[in-house]
Amino acid sequence: MSVGIVKEQSVTFDTDLRLESGRILGPITQVFETYGELNADASNAILVAHAWTGSAHLAGKHREDDPKPGWWDAIVGPGRLLDTDRYFVICPNVIGSCYGSTGPASINPKSGRRYSLTFPVITIRDMVRAQAMLLDHLGIKRLVSVLGGSMGGMQALEWGTQFPERVGSIIALATTPAPSPMAISLNAVARWAIFNDPAWKKGEYRKNPKDGLALARGIGHITFLSEESMQAKFGRRYSARDGLFDFFGKFEVERYLSYNGYNFVDRFDTNSFLYLAKALDLYDIALGYESLQEAMERIACPAQFFAFTSDWLYPPGQTEEMVGLMRQLGKDVEYHLIDSPYGHDAFLLEHETFAPQLSAFLKRVTAGE
Amino acid sequence: MSVGIVKEQSVTFDTDLRLESGRILGPITQVFETYGELNADASNAILVAHAWTGSAHLAGKHREDDPKPGWWDAIVGPGRLLDTDRYFVICPNVIGSCYGSTGPASINPKSGRRYSLTFPVITIRDMVRAQAMLLDHLGIKRLVSVLGGSMGGMQALEWGTQFPERVGSIIALATTPAPSPMAISLNAVARWAIFNDPAWKKGEYRKNPKDGLALARGIGHITFLSEESMQAKFGRRYSARDGLFDFFGKFEVERYLSYNGYNFVDRFDTNSFLYLAKALDLYDIALGYESLQEAMERIACPAQFFAFTSDWLYPPGQTEEMVGLMRQLGKDVEYHLIDSPYGHDAFLLEHETFAPQLSAFLKRVTAGE
Repeated sequence: MSVGIVKEQSVTFDTDLRLESGRILGPITQVFETYGELNADASNAILVAHAWTGSAHLAGKHREDDPKPGWWDAIVGPGRLLDTDRYFVICPNVIGSCYGSTGPASINPKSGRRYSLTFPVITIRDMVRAQAMLLDHLGIKRLVSVLGGSMGGMQALEWGTQFPERVGSIIALATTPAPSPMAISLNAVARWAIFNDPAWKKGEYRKNPKDGLALARGIGHITFLSEESMQAKFGRRYSARDGLFDFFGKFEVERYLSYNGYNFVDRFDTNSFLYLAKALDLYDIALGYESLQEAMERIACPAQFFAFTSDWLYPPGQTEEMVGLMRQLGKDVEYHLIDSPYGHDAFLLEHETFAPQLSAFLKRVTAGE
Repeated sequence: MSVGIVKEQSVTFDTDLRLESGRILGPITQVFETYGELNADASNAILVAHAWTGSAHLAGKHREDDPKPGWWDAIVGPGRLLDTDRYFVICPNVIGSCYGSTGPASINPKSGRRYSLTFPVITIRDMVRAQAMLLDHLGIKRLVSVLGGSMGGMQALEWGTQFPERVGSIIALATTPAPSPMAISLNAVARWAIFNDPAWKKGEYRKNPKDGLALARGIGHITFLSEESMQAKFGRRYSARDGLFDFFGKFEVERYLSYNGYNFVDRFDTNSFLYLAKALDLYDIALGYESLQEAMERIACPAQFFAFTSDWLYPPGQTEEMVGLMRQLGKDVEYHLIDSPYGHDAFLLEHETFAPQLSAFLKRVTAGE
């Protein structure tokens, strides 16, 4: 069942957060949504962390006539995978995003002007530390679980390593301990596309630089798909309205990327896109530790990992490296490689493929409670 | 041994070529280089077909002080893989290119102005038909072999299917019967990067639109490399001159792509880049036939194929589809999957990995002569 009509919530912390970079950010607004009821001893909370262009609007609708529910509605609600009859589900919008939490599009109260490029570079660890402030505010000492895919998976990993005492389990899907140079390259050319757009104006645009942002999204979009899914959806079909030998003629897949790229311009802020891309590329679970092993050693709770066979952005081998180390360390770790043609996006598109294992894992880790 | 100092040659055909699109192109200049001597009965010629941004300058140097020899110098010369003591090696620059053969940067003699976007869309088949005119001019009825990688491999395939009576063998490396939607997408975003650059001016630029072309090349460059080769060469190393948390800070791989992208601007014409990208995407060996099988059926000579394990642009499976069909058809076909970390570029970087098989193949197919 759907969670029904939900409301976005917001809290502003009038304190400064010392970022991983050493710079200071504050005050910090944290937008979030919650579903279900927090129980008396605040022991039934699950945090769902969103990916790059996601938001706090995880489930339900804001108004009856919203065309679509939240971005992972299928798994949240009474009787659903994250059962809101049992759990209190929290989805915070990450700092750096443009969906309400403090980001480069926010007004800097100290200057009265939009941050734009004066916004400090933030990291996944910074996002998670801001989320910890939110938990304090909500009176939650410890989470049943943190769950997320892609950038959301990185947040789950940071919860596990930075706040081991505050998480009962972590569930990370389609993620990586640190993006490969291939993944970095693909974000690099996406950034470059925006930097090339004169309408970007070094971040001082009034309206999104649409050509640059649409192209950047087009590049990103390719990395979320797979050879197989593109073959199935588009093959080599040519746009019916173009001549095969027109200079500007387009393959269907080309039209699709362009169409979706320009749609994205209406829903996401360019500077946020850049800051979050940077956070993704910089992500390294081992940063500040001697080794990946030393970082994984810090995880004190059961962990579950999912990787997807056709994900070439964060290929399964990268997850397997973490899982292998955790096994060596004698940690409680589960790993499931899901056979899917949907590439990196599989975690969002095919929750049925991992729902049974995820459900069993949650049951197991909450069994004593 | 090197072929030493070589000269570019050129011939202009004052005839019109009816292109696959139905449009007419003429006169047609064809630039080429040759190495070794054509024998008395013109029976020792091998044609080497270049890739996207290649040229006729296959081997040797134009002047003693050239910093580098031709693009595949390592395999051409006395005693080398293509032994110029024995073979007459021809390397034509494809039409559509900017290295001398007729292309969008050429002056249209009918208007006295640069073609730019009035240049017709050309196909791999058109390139090969122009090369056939060159062979007629040189008095060569039949080639010992046509050899090429990537777009050069497509040309070898077209020689095999369009001029079966004129080729004694074909050797195709790192190629495909038709690029996948993934490969098309990656070219599509490269094109888009150029279209976005205001300096491109719908092809009517005076100077290359550098930001757009450099980015387009950067995107292309990624597709030529592999996860593995990037990991080995760059890993996640961060540029020593940038702070890790600088907004414009760059990973080494990012700097490398940018540096090479801007270098490319000095050596290649933007419109040529676009027309050849189009020819690549449109390439379909089966175009005009009922099926891939019907196309492969036309190949009447021994064929040798090489694919490279880490080539994700034209993955081995695409070559294997052709090989499988040829085997079913009872054709004389050899296939070698080369284990290489160098991605699509492996065919240029690692000739030692396929030289023995290629050499044995050439020996075998020329044994009767």
